[in-house]
Amino acid sequence: KKFEDVFARIRDELIENFVAENMPKDAIEWYRRSLDFNVPGGKLNRGMSVVDSVAILRGRPLSDDEYFKAALLGWCIELLQAFFLVSDDMMDQSITRRGQPCWYRLEGIGNIAINDSFMLEGAIYHLLKKHFRQESYYVDLLDLFQEITYKTEMGQLVDLITAPEDSVDLNKFSLDKHRFIVRYKTAYYSFYLPVALAMYMCHVPQSYVQAGKTIRPYSLANDILIPLGEYFQVQDDYLDYSGTPEQIGKIGTDIVDNKCSWCVNVALAHATPAQRAVLDENYGRKDSAKEAKVKALFAEIGIPKLYEAYEEDAYKRIIGLIETIPEQGDGSSVEGTVVKREVFKSFLDKIYKRTK
Amino acid sequence: KKFEDVFARIRDELIENFVAENMPKDAIEWYRRSLDFNVPGGKLNRGMSVVDSVAILRGRPLSDDEYFKAALLGWCIELLQAFFLVSDDMMDQSITRRGQPCWYRLEGIGNIAINDSFMLEGAIYHLLKKHFRQESYYVDLLDLFQEITYKTEMGQLVDLITAPEDSVDLNKFSLDKHRFIVRYKTAYYSFYLPVALAMYMCHVPQSYVQAGKTIRPYSLANDILIPLGEYFQVQDDYLDYSGTPEQIGKIGTDIVDNKCSWCVNVALAHATPAQRAVLDENYGRKDSAKEAKVKALFAEIGIPKLYEAYEEDAYKRIIGLIETIPEQGDGSSVEGTVVKREVFKSFLDKIYKRTK
Ligand SMILES: [Mg+2]
Ligand SMILES: [Mg+2]
Ligand SMILES: [Mg+2]
Ligand SMILES: [Mg+2]
Ligand SMILES: [Mg+2]
Ligand SMILES: [Mg+2]
Repeated sequence: KKFEDVFARIRDELIENFVAENMPKDAIEWYRRSLDFNVPGGKLNRGMSVVDSVAILRGRPLSDDEYFKAALLGWCIELLQAFFLVSDDMMDQSITRRGQPCWYRLEGIGNIAINDSFMLEGAIYHLLKKHFRQESYYVDLLDLFQEITYKTEMGQLVDLITAPEDSVDLNKFSLDKHRFIVRYKTAYYSFYLPVALAMYMCHVPQSYVQAGKTIRPYSLANDILIPLGEYFQVQDDYLDYSGTPEQIGKIGTDIVDNKCSWCVNVALAHATPAQRAVLDENYGRKDSAKEAKVKALFAEIGIPKLYEAYEEDAYKRIIGLIETIPEQGDGSSVEGTVVKREVFKSFLDKIYKRTK
Repeated sequence: KKFEDVFARIRDELIENFVAENMPKDAIEWYRRSLDFNVPGGKLNRGMSVVDSVAILRGRPLSDDEYFKAALLGWCIELLQAFFLVSDDMMDQSITRRGQPCWYRLEGIGNIAINDSFMLEGAIYHLLKKHFRQESYYVDLLDLFQEITYKTEMGQLVDLITAPEDSVDLNKFSLDKHRFIVRYKTAYYSFYLPVALAMYMCHVPQSYVQAGKTIRPYSLANDILIPLGEYFQVQDDYLDYSGTPEQIGKIGTDIVDNKCSWCVNVALAHATPAQRAVLDENYGRKDSAKEAKVKALFAEIGIPKLYEAYEEDAYKRIIGLIETIPEQGDGSSVEGTVVKREVFKSFLDKIYKRTK
């Protein structure tokens, strides 16, 4: 549909640029194939949420040009994600992604995929320059992408050295490490980035006064969306353990893969010495009997109840933060666009009590 | 010495940032080790040439603050190079680099080096933001790093698919491909980038009139430095074939490694069908008898004479371009700093007729 059609245009622009640079034909074809294989094909939640957020902030339907620019920013997030996923699959030695083989596993590609991942990231800045160079907020877009990319890489490093698939050491795990990993590796680019991009595009200023309160909309968005992203990932971790394949559309593998998941960290925090020994012996092993023992222990410790309590608490905390935003109509003295509760509520509503 | 001391300060700033982000200690130590292992230790020509160029443009000794800022830009190039080298070594499955094992081959690192390479690149933008965010040319620095990174990745892709180490197909080679690879993979970041950074730091404008001529200094610098970088790489390729280990400090391996070198491309352009058959059978094989046959053929075709002619021609062309820059003293009506012949001559003089 409309959002996906924008990708074809973006892909063509990237290819035209390479033609203009006189790049040899086989390399142009290689890049086109990498773009088509790696960028579309996901759920596109991150990308489409830029468009949704711009529409909410503007409070009216978008013109064709506005739609294109918002969608382009959305596709820049999808390019960033493609960069992360292509490289993550190599680091994890994964086999499949989105129902197809991982890019690096295709015939003749192998380690060239490292450079291919770089070129997915490089496309972001080419597109931003081409379409946003004249905008007053151009430099903010660059800083934002840069900072969030760096943070995601920091999260990836902590994840890689905390939870290597082939060497289990539960002493390295903790709820603090889990929080760092999920915030840095996932929440910044998946939740804060789309909204902050939409806010820049709508010229939301760094601060303004509304209903007698000084609002710092970017730091407010950060304070809401990072916990929201954390909640989303905790839910993802919980569903990996508790969800049936029919529910979640895949078989959970976090336990056998030695993932630094919310479930194991909560279990570690509650385990008696005997229970801890069970975890040490059975977690992160490619053995379904051991996986079953871990699942039984999670039930014994009461992970489902603890998750329910976590979810209620997270929901209330986040709603509380959202409600610090003044209601519409109090903003008669504000110049420019202001943030709205609805931007954040629309994220929260998609997530709360989801089972898939 | 002075330039290297700046690295310690930069490294400490990067580490302090991670401490401020509450990154777990083991990950901070990992990053510190990656920075120390991968960033210093090269020849530092690229980095130091930013400082040299700023000094020439200013025409006076630099203050401590100016020196630091120029050196920081220089270290950003060294960080960019570290990003390229760490990843290139993985893609080439290299064993050593700068007299030590490649980073990815160290115990416990392996494919995590992919993310480590990203974090070397990420450091550039953190440092630029910290030290240059207030400068009028900040956005130009970002655009420049971005564009040149993308171009280098384009050159790397063409190199990787044109000259894979394990599959020889000389039909893929040509002097045009060679030119694309050396310009994109090497010349932009090694020659144009340091000078353009120095020019931005000195507030050289996009265009000005001097001695009655409209000068576009960045495109002029590009037009001089890209051929200069190409000449440098042709020389590097030639020395790999002709230089003794005493001269070049290493044993040339381009022939056995199936490199898309200037020598083989010139040989292909001049070869009779019989000579072409010798190349097809012997180039790019891990076999010193075959390597010797290729070297004998290069001599038979007259590569040394052809190189001499290339060098004389390149030198004259580049000098001619440099001399289109008005001499000093003609610039009384120019506001801001102007480019000077000396910036480019100092590069050319370091390269012309070097034998190591
Ligand atoms: Mg993975
Ligand atoms: Mg991973
Ligand atoms: Mg999961
Ligand atoms: Mg290499
Ligand atoms: Mg290489
Ligand atoms: Mg060489």
